Amino acid sequence: MLDPAAPLAVYMEGAVLHYGGKMGVGVLRYSPNPIACVIDSETAGRGTRETMGVERDVPIVATVEEALALGATVFILGIAPPGGLIPPAWLPAIDRAVEGGMFVVNGLHDKLAGRYGSRVWDVRTEPEGLKPGTGAARTLNNRRVLMVGTDMAVGKMTAGLEVWKASPKGSAFVATGQIGITVTGAGVPLDAIRLDFSTGAIEREVMRYPDTPVTIIEGQGSLVHPSSTATLPLLRGGMPTHLILCARAGQTHLETQPVPIPPLGQLIRLYEDVAEACGTFPRPKTIGVALNTFHIKDDAEALAACERIEADLNLPCVDPVRHGAERLAAL
Amino acid sequence: MLDPAAPLAVYMEGAVLHYGGKMGVGVLRYSPNPIACVIDSETAGRGTRETMGVERDVPIVATVEEALALGATVFILGIAPPGGLIPPAWLPAIDRAVEGGMFVVNGLHDKLAGRYGSRVWDVRTEPEGLKPGTGAARTLNNRRVLMVGTDMAVGKMTAGLEVWKASPKGSAFVATGQIGITVTGAGVPLDAIRLDFSTGAIEREVMRYPDTPVTIIEGQGSLVHPSSTATLPLLRGGMPTHLILCARAGQTHLETQPVPIPPLGQLIRLYEDVAEACGTFPRPKTIGVALNTFHIKDDAEALAACERIEADLNLPCVDPVRHGAERLAAL
Repeated sequence: MLDPAAPLAVYMEGAVLHYGGKMGVGVLRYSPNPIACVIDSETAGRGTRETMGVERDVPIVATVEEALALGATVFILGIAPPGGLIPPAWLPAIDRAVEGGMFVVNGLHDKLAGRYGSRVWDVRTEPEGLKPGTGAARTLNNRRVLMVGTDMAVGKMTAGLEVWKASPKGSAFVATGQIGITVTGAGVPLDAIRLDFSTGAIEREVMRYPDTPVTIIEGQGSLVHPSSTATLPLLRGGMPTHLILCARAGQTHLETQPVPIPPLGQLIRLYEDVAEACGTFPRPKTIGVALNTFHIKDDAEALAACERIEADLNLPCVDPVRHGAERLAAL
Repeated sequence: MLDPAAPLAVYMEGAVLHYGGKMGVGVLRYSPNPIACVIDSETAGRGTRETMGVERDVPIVATVEEALALGATVFILGIAPPGGLIPPAWLPAIDRAVEGGMFVVNGLHDKLAGRYGSRVWDVRTEPEGLKPGTGAARTLNNRRVLMVGTDMAVGKMTAGLEVWKASPKGSAFVATGQIGITVTGAGVPLDAIRLDFSTGAIEREVMRYPDTPVTIIEGQGSLVHPSSTATLPLLRGGMPTHLILCARAGQTHLETQPVPIPPLGQLIRLYEDVAEACGTFPRPKTIGVALNTFHIKDDAEALAACERIEADLNLPCVDPVRHGAERLAAL
């Protein structure tokens, strides 16, 4: 959807040092586009590596005018506020970006097309022509790997993109969330799809790639989360042959809820049981664990966390960002 | 949403003797409103008991004009075509109904408000102000019974309404589909809700009834169906304390797919396992089986089918329409 040569400005006002900048960080990590700058008046003058720990180091500026001066032609909303609504305080900056000739990428539930017309890509829009799922992906002969998780936001997209990069040439990545769609230019915004069409939406994406060596399906949600919904459309629409469990090292409860996370081995069995539904569908095989160790500063400690899980489950366990995803992709 | 005194005309053109009239049959069985007639030119002159086997016997007429002459003031689309789109062939009849002063009830995904404005209730519209689920229903102390199923269209709504009727005074029914919403006047059209808000939508409905003796939650879909999606939002949003499994006597495979239905005992365990998610949430108890024996003409044979399941699972099993739901409601 985006010209891969267009320089981006990533709007992260107030979110560089605080919670909510997941979209911006995803774009910084994985967008193939050049990135002119991040916009955040709080950290203006600093860089993204120092402030956010991302590898790609771009300048942080305070205003839309500075972003325009740096040559940015695309303005990406890099913050995901709770509830998915666009705070009115953002509108003046977006107005200035559009007046300055920029195109806006919006990954929130709130739409901007009504305000800016064709100058906007509202990523989280239900596509046309969807149907309920039919289980068609069962008929494919390729390997389909679904990323599943212990919680929201444990790194399912990141791990999936890393496994994809380490997979054989010709492999596909099916993006199912706004960040994955923005950085790959394709996919389906699962959480904005009406329930009736959600399996069909995943199925349609997976069926676009009948002959890949591997199709990686970006996961969403978690079976143990109280707002869990996405596991079933992903399992039924994608009919995965393999699963990779994504977890955060040391996490015992959900991030936003006093809900315990079960032992990983039990959770793996539950995901496989649900996928198989008592033998109704082929049982996928869990091939490894992608462990998010971002919060552990010490490399040896991060490696030890992976080794403990590897010994416990007798499955490969790596942090794909820290250690690369080759061991998960090679299975 | 409907004046309970308003006489209904149920539009079932071509569907009285054929597949697709589920909405019309549901209205005939459960609407508290007077029903002036069914509209179907193929069976005009006959009655609904003889043609469709429903208890309420109303005349079938051929035209909207006849329905108006019988005093109907509400025109209900009683057919659910695959895909949820309104066939253009229906529009002249709907036009005539609106010109004649009738109000239209539309349970399909296609909306009619654009054509008829405030003369329409588009039942399958996402309500305003939804949020993701939070697991709040866990904090309630009442009994919450979720209807789960082996397949689509095995009678989850019907069994749920029958159990509700047999439940203690003050019990609630949470409708989650267009028919249940139409006949009870409340509820949420789950399959038209965006995935991100689907658990929250169920949670909001269940939280409306904190002090009922029993809240019956209408089920949708099935864990073994390839387009399955609704089980998770129902389990997480409703946090049921009890389950009732709905099945069709003798059915070995899904109606529309060559997919085997597992042994009922295994499926019950899977539903309970998913609800509990390895001990993360309270485990619901399955209290019985509602068996759809509509296709079995012989009463003794229908009873024997129930008795076999009862002996096999050591759980009460009845056809709620044939035998009443008292045994399921008393548990």
